[in-house]
Amino acid sequence: MVSFGKNEIIILFLSISLMLGTARVFGEIFRRIKLPPVVGEILAGILIGPTILGRIAPDFFSWIFPTGTRIAFSIEVLILLGVTFLLFIAGLEVNLTSVLKQGSFVLLLSAFSIAIPFAMGTMVSWFNPGLFGSTANKVALSFFIGITLSITALPIIAKILLDLNLIKTDFGVQLLSSAMINDIFGWLFFAILIQLIETGAVNVPTVIRTVLLTIITAILILTLIRHLINKTLPWIQAKTAWPGGVISFTIIIGMILASITERIGIHAIFGAFLAGVAIGESPHLREHTREIIEQFINNIFAPLFFVSIGLRIDFIEHFNLFLALLFIVLVLTGKIGSAVIAGKIAGVSLRESLLIGSGMSASGAMGIILGLFALQFNIINPETFEAIVIMALCTSLLSSPLMKFFMRSKEQLSLIETIDSKLFIPALRSRTAGDAIAELSEIAARKIKLDGATIAERVLERESLMSTGIGDQVAVPHARLSEVQKSSVVIGISEEGIDFNAYDGKPAHLIFLILTPLSDPDAQIQLLCEISTIFQQRDIREEILHGTTFSEFMSAVKMGYYMNPNICATPKDIDRLRRESPEKRQG
Amino acid sequence: MVSFGKNEIIILFLSISLMLGTARVFGEIFRRIKLPPVVGEILAGILIGPTILGRIAPDFFSWIFPTGTRIAFSIEVLILLGVTFLLFIAGLEVNLTSVLKQGSFVLLLSAFSIAIPFAMGTMVSWFNPGLFGSTANKVALSFFIGITLSITALPIIAKILLDLNLIKTDFGVQLLSSAMINDIFGWLFFAILIQLIETGAVNVPTVIRTVLLTIITAILILTLIRHLINKTLPWIQAKTAWPGGVISFTIIIGMILASITERIGIHAIFGAFLAGVAIGESPHLREHTREIIEQFINNIFAPLFFVSIGLRIDFIEHFNLFLALLFIVLVLTGKIGSAVIAGKIAGVSLRESLLIGSGMSASGAMGIILGLFALQFNIINPETFEAIVIMALCTSLLSSPLMKFFMRSKEQLSLIETIDSKLFIPALRSRTAGDAIAELSEIAARKIKLDGATIAERVLERESLMSTGIGDQVAVPHARLSEVQKSSVVIGISEEGIDFNAYDGKPAHLIFLILTPLSDPDAQIQLLCEISTIFQQRDIREEILHGTTFSEFMSAVKMGYYMNPNICATPKDIDRLRRESPEKRQG
Repeated sequence: MVSFGKNEIIILFLSISLMLGTARVFGEIFRRIKLPPVVGEILAGILIGPTILGRIAPDFFSWIFPTGTRIAFSIEVLILLGVTFLLFIAGLEVNLTSVLKQGSFVLLLSAFSIAIPFAMGTMVSWFNPGLFGSTANKVALSFFIGITLSITALPIIAKILLDLNLIKTDFGVQLLSSAMINDIFGWLFFAILIQLIETGAVNVPTVIRTVLLTIITAILILTLIRHLINKTLPWIQAKTAWPGGVISFTIIIGMILASITERIGIHAIFGAFLAGVAIGESPHLREHTREIIEQFINNIFAPLFFVSIGLRIDFIEHFNLFLALLFIVLVLTGKIGSAVIAGKIAGVSLRESLLIGSGMSASGAMGIILGLFALQFNIINPETFEAIVIMALCTSLLSSPLMKFFMRSKEQLSLIETIDSKLFIPALRSRTAGDAIAELSEIAARKIKLDGATIAERVLERESLMSTGIGDQVAVPHARLSEVQKSSVVIGISEEGIDFNAYDGKPAHLIFLILTPLSDPDAQIQLLCEISTIFQQRDIREEILHGTTFSEFMSAVKMGYYMNPNICATPKDIDRLRRESPEKRQG
Repeated sequence: MVSFGKNEIIILFLSISLMLGTARVFGEIFRRIKLPPVVGEILAGILIGPTILGRIAPDFFSWIFPTGTRIAFSIEVLILLGVTFLLFIAGLEVNLTSVLKQGSFVLLLSAFSIAIPFAMGTMVSWFNPGLFGSTANKVALSFFIGITLSITALPIIAKILLDLNLIKTDFGVQLLSSAMINDIFGWLFFAILIQLIETGAVNVPTVIRTVLLTIITAILILTLIRHLINKTLPWIQAKTAWPGGVISFTIIIGMILASITERIGIHAIFGAFLAGVAIGESPHLREHTREIIEQFINNIFAPLFFVSIGLRIDFIEHFNLFLALLFIVLVLTGKIGSAVIAGKIAGVSLRESLLIGSGMSASGAMGIILGLFALQFNIINPETFEAIVIMALCTSLLSSPLMKFFMRSKEQLSLIETIDSKLFIPALRSRTAGDAIAELSEIAARKIKLDGATIAERVLERESLMSTGIGDQVAVPHARLSEVQKSSVVIGISEEGIDFNAYDGKPAHLIFLILTPLSDPDAQIQLLCEISTIFQQRDIREEILHGTTFSEFMSAVKMGYYMNPNICATPKDIDRLRRESPEKRQG
């Protein structure tokens, strides 16, 4: 039996408050200046870590973060739970069907983004072992540097996508799937490395066993276990106090699957992530339950993990600029280069390849964990470890501005500038989603140089991935077309309602067909954001269902803009507004 | 920097899952058999603790709960956070205004419930020191036994009140305020005791300083800090991502105030509790934010604390029946006796005094923490420590049945307890009201000793007075029968809809046949009120029309209860609830 001392409790609570408080303040500042909050949270860690606070007020610093004590360990427990839970909620948001349909680009990207940086790292280290650590362990050292460069930072990528509200977009799904496959292989390599260090040789049967076990576990979780969860959820909802029973159940599943993947030899976070995917797939998981889990984890646990990165090291002492730059350059060229090559082969545009490559280049958060082991076994020197931490920070800091840079399109077209009286059907004849899409596509064909049937086909193709009924009687069938240069939105109103398979089971009365240029992924996101923001407001929706003329429709849309100043100014708004919507809250 | 080993992560995650899983399963079982879930959670701890699991599977037990390791310490961290957060959410629910209006009874009760058990404990121990520990520390020992008997178990009382949904009632407020004042003094005494042990004497100025500081802090938190929080909340809600910013802010305030009260010398949980009260008082704290915080803490953190009590000790080994019974008898007579005396003076009825005394008699949860210190300083022997733990468990187990016993009034049967999978027709064959009543009556006849035709006749008789289609697709044919002793509700779902002559002209899809005893007019009103409250909500109705299994139906009904806490507590509520319906609440 263990017991806390009075001072331990005081310091522990204050250090958690300091971590959470600065993380949130910096996260909010970054959100306001349109940068991902997670970058602010990492910087908050540097501020209250040994680098700044440790220099300015060393006594206070060593009082509130006493190294090697039970307080330090307590914080470590929360950080471990933080990163595990974070991956769990990232998984909840992932749509399995769209991952499975991604196909060759994701596979190519994962393969290249492991192989190329790994080759670069091993080579550099093989010819200059003295730079990174002891020459005695040349094989292990080169192997380690290769892994460090090839492994991405899944938690940071997931958080950036959550923050930018991109996790459900095609781009988000591609990036997250590639990062996950990439990192699973990274951890498999690492399991091999540990064997190499401990026994001096690689045991091929064990390696094969680990690889097979990983694949089997992932498949089992995403098929059998997913099926069982889906069958069990309604029973739990019926038999236990709601939503409490479901909250406990999902977290327990997450922790058990996390311990299984940890046991296999890859990190616990993968099990938590896969558990999230399996649970999030169930139509029985209600929005309200998901919201409670995500909000608490996102606002209490996750910031502790991100702020802890900066706490781990003094970024000024023992700083080796050359090593740090070398790592950063290797990661950026390796990751972005792999994406460009994979994109070239898969026929993806250069801009999109650069975009996804920038996302993949957020590295090192896991490298820090690997680095701790390597340091312990005297494989790398402290300078290398520091350089890895700095690389982790810089690439995480760089990745989202880079993404924003490549995402930037010419002008951000807003809904109000896109709608057009010629693209407005006050009374749809269709009764099914397919017919409605055909009817709207015919109208769209008046304005773009494509025939209605082709447009409808592309939209239905997208629809088959995931239906676009977004609830609240609104549906947003959409497609990105290489043939168009300008976005169009065709609006159809159905008095009877058309089933678009919305999560709330309600038929859609307002159908927006959104056609955007393939070259401008942002246009789609912007229009989706504005439509969902404006039309989730029941007052506005009712205004429209009752009035049918185009000018009445326009006046309702204007009211929407009036009621939501700065609408969708940052992508995160979509999220905030969705969460504030009264109807959805009941989920 | 500390790092977890692979096995540590696996075992930690599995032990947390085991604790949380068994706690929730037993909690749910207890909820079903109408006992407070917290009692189930404590028993779950005994089951997976050294007493049962440690005996049946000692190897597994010492693998999953390895004592003295970093894993054990990690769990301890979560338990500490669990109890602190639990008191925080209990505070959120407390209404300060009603506490301040309590007046003399609460003050008298707090005073007596400290003084009397303290006097009893000190006396018994003074004359029989050998029974409890070493005679060398007779003063400290007697002081300790006195404190142990006088201190209540604030977390358990808070949880019982939350579970029984009594925390906002006058009774709940009285009990919680008395317990808090009582426990604050208990901890003040304990601070004095530690001084006595460490320095061998009591330093009067220090004691006075601690007492004054406690009072000043409590007043400051409930006035100035409460005011500042109330001023700050709207700003945070406006400037930060909602509800995330508020969630982080409130938890940070809770932890900072917790560390302040810990610093003063009373336990951290008081600061967390007072922080909860101060924050909960603000009208700016939205229901949605409160819900996220409460649900996550109640379902993830709190169970870990309660299950941990049973983990701490083997209840069979070194079991001293006499000591345990002595403690239990002393606590029960001391606490209930104090309440009766305080009630007598304040002019409170005997039943109410007995009720509140039963609540106050939940003791020992804090006594365990005190006992750990006392054991460490060799003041008490292990048998005494065990007896305290057993006393803690037994009084916690006893307190709620005792409360229920003294609370017992006429049984108010609720819809959820009345419906039954045997009285459920997922697809009615009938097309007319008369046929439907006959079809439902046949099913009813399976459970009550009347044939279907007779039941149908009585119901139709009532129906002829006024049709029972209450609109919103719901019909409630009903009858009061002298032949039945217990209410029954037969549920039928009709896909096509049956005309029950509702005022809104819509056919009924959900038909409830309500049969109640002639002797209990309230039963019918209660059931009608609950049915109309729940099923007037379109979301819930649609949920049911789409799903047809009984468990899906149950889960929708539960959602209805969840969305309407205190449903139909008084018949007037029907009206109030309609006005406060969740959609409107946001407005």
